[in-house]
Amino acid sequence: MIKKVIHIPKKIFKIKKKKKIGEPPGTLIYTGEKIKVKSNYVFIKYNKDDFVISESEIEDNEAETFNIEKNKVNWINITGLANVKFIEKIGHFFDLHPLVLEDILNPLQRPKIEEFDNYIFIVMKKLLWNEEREEFNQEQISLILGNNFVVSFLEEESDLFKPIIDRIRIPKGKIRIMGADYLLYCLIDLIVDNYFIIMEFLNEKIENIEDTLVSNPEPKTLHEIYELKKSIIELRKFVWPLRELVNKLQREQSELISDELQIYIRDIYDHIFRITETLDSFREIIFGMLDMYLSSVSNKMNEIMKVLTIISTTFIPLSFLAGFYGMNFKYMPELTSTFSYPILIICMFSIFILMLYFFRRKKWL
Amino acid sequence: MIKKVIHIPKKIFKIKKKKKIGEPPGTLIYTGEKIKVKSNYVFIKYNKDDFVISESEIEDNEAETFNIEKNKVNWINITGLANVKFIEKIGHFFDLHPLVLEDILNPLQRPKIEEFDNYIFIVMKKLLWNEEREEFNQEQISLILGNNFVVSFLEEESDLFKPIIDRIRIPKGKIRIMGADYLLYCLIDLIVDNYFIIMEFLNEKIENIEDTLVSNPEPKTLHEIYELKKSIIELRKFVWPLRELVNKLQREQSELISDELQIYIRDIYDHIFRITETLDSFREIIFGMLDMYLSSVSNKMNEIMKVLTIISTTFIPLSFLAGFYGMNFKYMPELTSTFSYPILIICMFSIFILMLYFFRRKKWL
Amino acid sequence: MIKKVIHIPKKIFKIKKKKKIGEPPGTLIYTGEKIKVKSNYVFIKYNKDDFVISESEIEDNEAETFNIEKNKVNWINITGLANVKFIEKIGHFFDLHPLVLEDILNPLQRPKIEEFDNYIFIVMKKLLWNEEREEFNQEQISLILGNNFVVSFLEEESDLFKPIIDRIRIPKGKIRIMGADYLLYCLIDLIVDNYFIIMEFLNEKIENIEDTLVSNPEPKTLHEIYELKKSIIELRKFVWPLRELVNKLQREQSELISDELQIYIRDIYDHIFRITETLDSFREIIFGMLDMYLSSVSNKMNEIMKVLTIISTTFIPLSFLAGFYGMNFKYMPELTSTFSYPILIICMFSIFILMLYFFRRKKWL
Amino acid sequence: MIKKVIHIPKKIFKIKKKKKIGEPPGTLIYTGEKIKVKSNYVFIKYNKDDFVISESEIEDNEAETFNIEKNKVNWINITGLANVKFIEKIGHFFDLHPLVLEDILNPLQRPKIEEFDNYIFIVMKKLLWNEEREEFNQEQISLILGNNFVVSFLEEESDLFKPIIDRIRIPKGKIRIMGADYLLYCLIDLIVDNYFIIMEFLNEKIENIEDTLVSNPEPKTLHEIYELKKSIIELRKFVWPLRELVNKLQREQSELISDELQIYIRDIYDHIFRITETLDSFREIIFGMLDMYLSSVSNKMNEIMKVLTIISTTFIPLSFLAGFYGMNFKYMPELTSTFSYPILIICMFSIFILMLYFFRRKKWL
Amino acid sequence: MIKKVIHIPKKIFKIKKKKKIGEPPGTLIYTGEKIKVKSNYVFIKYNKDDFVISESEIEDNEAETFNIEKNKVNWINITGLANVKFIEKIGHFFDLHPLVLEDILNPLQRPKIEEFDNYIFIVMKKLLWNEEREEFNQEQISLILGNNFVVSFLEEESDLFKPIIDRIRIPKGKIRIMGADYLLYCLIDLIVDNYFIIMEFLNEKIENIEDTLVSNPEPKTLHEIYELKKSIIELRKFVWPLRELVNKLQREQSELISDELQIYIRDIYDHIFRITETLDSFREIIFGMLDMYLSSVSNKMNEIMKVLTIISTTFIPLSFLAGFYGMNFKYMPELTSTFSYPILIICMFSIFILMLYFFRRKKWL
Repeated sequence: MIKKVIHIPKKIFKIKKKKKIGEPPGTLIYTGEKIKVKSNYVFIKYNKDDFVISESEIEDNEAETFNIEKNKVNWINITGLANVKFIEKIGHFFDLHPLVLEDILNPLQRPKIEEFDNYIFIVMKKLLWNEEREEFNQEQISLILGNNFVVSFLEEESDLFKPIIDRIRIPKGKIRIMGADYLLYCLIDLIVDNYFIIMEFLNEKIENIEDTLVSNPEPKTLHEIYELKKSIIELRKFVWPLRELVNKLQREQSELISDELQIYIRDIYDHIFRITETLDSFREIIFGMLDMYLSSVSNKMNEIMKVLTIISTTFIPLSFLAGFYGMNFKYMPELTSTFSYPILIICMFSIFILMLYFFRRKKWL
Repeated sequence: MIKKVIHIPKKIFKIKKKKKIGEPPGTLIYTGEKIKVKSNYVFIKYNKDDFVISESEIEDNEAETFNIEKNKVNWINITGLANVKFIEKIGHFFDLHPLVLEDILNPLQRPKIEEFDNYIFIVMKKLLWNEEREEFNQEQISLILGNNFVVSFLEEESDLFKPIIDRIRIPKGKIRIMGADYLLYCLIDLIVDNYFIIMEFLNEKIENIEDTLVSNPEPKTLHEIYELKKSIIELRKFVWPLRELVNKLQREQSELISDELQIYIRDIYDHIFRITETLDSFREIIFGMLDMYLSSVSNKMNEIMKVLTIISTTFIPLSFLAGFYGMNFKYMPELTSTFSYPILIICMFSIFILMLYFFRRKKWL
Repeated sequence: MIKKVIHIPKKIFKIKKKKKIGEPPGTLIYTGEKIKVKSNYVFIKYNKDDFVISESEIEDNEAETFNIEKNKVNWINITGLANVKFIEKIGHFFDLHPLVLEDILNPLQRPKIEEFDNYIFIVMKKLLWNEEREEFNQEQISLILGNNFVVSFLEEESDLFKPIIDRIRIPKGKIRIMGADYLLYCLIDLIVDNYFIIMEFLNEKIENIEDTLVSNPEPKTLHEIYELKKSIIELRKFVWPLRELVNKLQREQSELISDELQIYIRDIYDHIFRITETLDSFREIIFGMLDMYLSSVSNKMNEIMKVLTIISTTFIPLSFLAGFYGMNFKYMPELTSTFSYPILIICMFSIFILMLYFFRRKKWL
Repeated sequence: MIKKVIHIPKKIFKIKKKKKIGEPPGTLIYTGEKIKVKSNYVFIKYNKDDFVISESEIEDNEAETFNIEKNKVNWINITGLANVKFIEKIGHFFDLHPLVLEDILNPLQRPKIEEFDNYIFIVMKKLLWNEEREEFNQEQISLILGNNFVVSFLEEESDLFKPIIDRIRIPKGKIRIMGADYLLYCLIDLIVDNYFIIMEFLNEKIENIEDTLVSNPEPKTLHEIYELKKSIIELRKFVWPLRELVNKLQREQSELISDELQIYIRDIYDHIFRITETLDSFREIIFGMLDMYLSSVSNKMNEIMKVLTIISTTFIPLSFLAGFYGMNFKYMPELTSTFSYPILIICMFSIFILMLYFFRRKKWL
Repeated sequence: MIKKVIHIPKKIFKIKKKKKIGEPPGTLIYTGEKIKVKSNYVFIKYNKDDFVISESEIEDNEAETFNIEKNKVNWINITGLANVKFIEKIGHFFDLHPLVLEDILNPLQRPKIEEFDNYIFIVMKKLLWNEEREEFNQEQISLILGNNFVVSFLEEESDLFKPIIDRIRIPKGKIRIMGADYLLYCLIDLIVDNYFIIMEFLNEKIENIEDTLVSNPEPKTLHEIYELKKSIIELRKFVWPLRELVNKLQREQSELISDELQIYIRDIYDHIFRITETLDSFREIIFGMLDMYLSSVSNKMNEIMKVLTIISTTFIPLSFLAGFYGMNFKYMPELTSTFSYPILIICMFSIFILMLYFFRRKKWL
């Protein structure tokens, strides 16, 4: 019965490592699930005065044609990672370390930041709740910040960065005045903002379960609590490293990040802090919900026991009396007396009333 | 049944982010609930010799008219944040960072302190217990400490700061001799003092639940424990950051805060420490209360079981005997004997007594 | 029933803040409970060669008369804090900060140490177990260590420091050779030593509960565990800060504390460490006791269930048989047969034996 | 019944110390279990241009013959540690500290790293799941990194390092260009990679138990949870120290490890971090599973109770009525009336229906 | 019943402080239990070439006669601490601080290390499991390391240090070449090695309980778990401080400890780390065992309930039918029909079969 109602996710955690064990590090294979997504990219160049956008599908010989302009911010947003050769060329073009490329192509990375001589490499997760399968869909987003360029890698096409492109389009927008580091900040801020949606969703779910707990707890409710707890455990793995990530951004005085940006990073840090804090609150609340559930089960049991006990113990003495006078002894003087029957009925009634009084006093009725 | 008794708050945590995701940072929108509160401000200027207070509703062109006097402490207390334009002008006048203004207008900030070149920005929470809805009402209070000025932002009008204004009025009061930093300290101290009221309220609530636990535990009691636990979880989120906040005030040797003030800050720190400590004690006590509750439920069940068992097992053998001699076999020698009936009664009585003795020895009676 | 047996303390935690919210810091009001204790003081001056003791009740104009001698250790032990004016004069005489005086007069301070330019201020707690009310009585003890003087403030008169006065009286005692810092050490050591008595008391209490748990667990036992746990939670709040306190004494190289004293402070630290460690052990043991209790309740229930099940299920089939042959059908061939009755008795007996064998095999008997 | 189904491992933890207590440190005895494994070694020398591999069984006088070439990377892979004399000679040849040799021969070491003047000593664990005995098989792997050599010690022969040898064989492979430190990195990376297999195995096991929990929880399930928890506790002891190990590799600027390698070490660190993180998630999930199990047991009990209560309480009043009219009183007017019997049947039927309605309203049916 | 089986230790923790509260620090009284142990000592002097051992009972005037030779390692091993005067003389001879002597004589110290100007003072615990009383016997061992001497204090005579004396006797042993610091290391190593025996004992005990849990859990088992938990709590108090102790030995660059010894100290640290780690694993396992126990109790209850329910609910409808046809109504047409009786038997049998089928479907049979 329960089996039908409850959805059992097929994979709890994805923990496979990137490739065949023992293969040399730096071998590039895309290990994600979206291998059928066609790769393409958007190349945006802008500064205070100018804004150029070009979009195209990726072909194998394209990497050489990037025309990075020094006095502009150059943003290349790549979607679809199945075209490994292109990624390799990008890596070559921007002089990225082989392990960085490996991490970009392996979508099971933890969120992290790594600083290199002339660029910063950031891995983050975009999370979406898949209502149908009751799972998080996670997508890895890799960001490279160089001197005057940002390269972003997405596993599949989405409208995620559209608001930012729109903001760049506006001629006098702040983003147009600022450098590549500010663009990076905008991208990170956008990704973090999406987490608030997840948090609200979880919040709503907790409220629903609470309502059920009070009105009508069922075994299914417990299973929902369990699944929710697991979601939060999983979510923490994506959110907690962000704290360290942004912390590092603040501390490491990279030349790529201007001092002016520090206050914006502090702002992101505040958001992440609030998310982690709320996640921890959720965890504690879920512990409380478990206690509620178990106790409500106990209360039900108590009620059942009470009914059984009241009815059983009320009728058992009466049944005994009835059985007693059903005996077939020849010499039972009571049986022949005319008043025996009414007297017995009175007795039985008194016992019945006494019993009810006893249960009332015990507060069972 | 339970449904009617228990109040279910509609929103556990408010976790919405400030604005539409993707909007540029620095866009000013007031996101709190008190949008109908009319904005007005009080402007107080004082030093050892002088004290001037002026109060007025906010009009759009007013920001330019602040007359900050160098040799006085200037305190501008603003209530009502719906007039975004005015806040923006204030920000312009005091040269505040756009993100600071954003934080002031978004009342879901964590308590925090941020140091800028020529001012310190502090966010705190004023908490009030809403007896009716069994929730905390939180109001965000933002404070700006500059060289010789303090700007305070409240979401709605209240008498909160009245005692401090009264103290400033007194010509020879300490506050009149000290600088703007001391005024800031007084404001923070006042806000922290309000937390002690919340703590006492929680204390009382715990005591009430304890009384109920001992005398008459009900499912409702468990729900109260659960709600109390959630309140404490929420409260911690407002109180814990204060520790770090005051810590930072102590460590960061800002020029805006004189050395003389350190001992006063240490005093606030002590208070906050006591509050957090007490909150943690509450949490531990609540865990104990849960055990109490669950065990009292078990005890009730035991008692019910005992009654059922004693009555059932006492009468079952007797009923069997009665049934036995109710059989209609033709050849049952006992039935015809004159002494069978009294002997059986004696037997039954003996069994009854033996049973009672057995239960007494088991300490069930 | 339970209600009568269990003592419910009226106040769990005292968390009131010092005075009316909003009052200026530094306003002196004694907020403790012992307002009727008459203030008096003992003034002891000693060095290697000399020992002078003078005792007197406090009058308002006395503070000026302290005759601090430079080449002696001067110890002023004040008992009773209701005479605020005198405390104020003391503060003036020794040049104490207003907040220090406030802390001395507010007996809800956490144990702490604060270093000032020319004196060290220490707050500690003297704990006594009030057997009658099953509560800790706490008394605040404030200590001021100056260059060649110690001032101690007690809430009420007691023999607490008598052993130290006796030791000072001895002409060649170590204390006579050492400075004011050594006197401070002796006072702290004495206060910490008193905690061991509390620990032994708790130890005994745990042992008593353990005995009860094994022999005869009752709901009252659970309540005792709960109260014990709360006592330990409260005690921790007084003991843990001591660790930090002594730690600070060790680290901060104050001129007031000679190097020679460090090893003695380390000794106190060891004692405090042992106390905190034992407190934590107690906590863990209490968790174990809860499990013991809950499981012993379960075991009792199991036993009750067994008795019910054995007697019910043994007699139910027999009763059915008896009922069966009590039916009044005209054509029941068994009823008329002469051997039916003895055969039935044999059958019933066999069923009875089989049932017992079944329960024996299940290890219920 | 349970006894047969559940496998009870004979040894939980191996905690014996290396040798007879009191023996001088540095006495070499192999204390592992694989004493019958014949020792042999593979000696590989390679650089960009050259690759030489020689393999041979160990004889006692062989140690002197190692021909370490300065401009090549020299890798000696020793399998089988029972030949203590040979190990001793190796130690002598490479000038290893006696305690290092002792650690190599004692396979109960924690994973650790120790830096010496001219070499680094690393202990790691290779873990294999023994499906048959439901235990981890652990094998200790010791690694020595010198200036231009790596010595690896394995307890028994295996194909573990085969992929690396294959990679060295490839003339233009990266490993051929890099130094001995890169070889060390490859070995560590390989060992860590094997942990992912264990993690996936545990993942699968958790999923299996979850399925059982939902569909058909049995006491055996609980035992599986318990054993799984123990496996994770054991696993943590092997994995957590790795974090510190790699951390040390990063921090301690040994001359033996080139700067270029830092990024590769960071990569290993990421993997280890993910493993520990996942292990901790597993632990939390297992706690949740326990709650699920206990609550499903409670639910079963509730269901049983319901059936008992419904049937008992429905028939008990009816049985009483039947017994009542089975009494043998002479003067029972109802017995002689013609309509008594059908009326009684109607009554009984009504009671039966009422009872069912009552249970339906209680949601027991 | 349980009362007889379970041993209740009379004292959980020994927490008495050393002497009467208020006595001056430095007053020497032996506060241990072994006051009847006669004091004696062994004096060993050795270097590479020479070895002298002298043994004698302690008399009061002996302390002056120690002939410490500068170019030898001098080891004085004292057993029995009741002779306080002698200890005092030793203290005088080696210029030990009065508090050190106090700690040596008070066997309730925590393990610790204290560094003085010209010696290091170490307190450790020797633990033995007292099988009979099911308690740990702890004995305090104090060690003093001076420039060229080691003084060790034991509470009672034992063979503990015999293996080391034997090793010193060997002319070319490593210990003969090394200094006093190496001797200290050997002593500490020996004491730590003894802890592994305790760990194995606990391991065995856990395994025994696990076996019982699976095969035949009883209330006694729970009590064993509880006592085991308490032992582990106590043991942690002796083992955890060792970590800090050895850590300090490593960090503090005392001149008394040569650099060469660092690697040996690291070895001890590894052992202590393994012990603490295993202790923590034990703790976690014990938590799991509790869950196992509680759930096995629940399972038993379920089984009992099932038997009760199956037998009760099967026979209750049948008994009703039997009672029904036992009624004495004059006009019951069924009673006179010839086929009623066999039809009823068939009905009853059908009900019986249906019931069994129902229980089988519920998986109760």
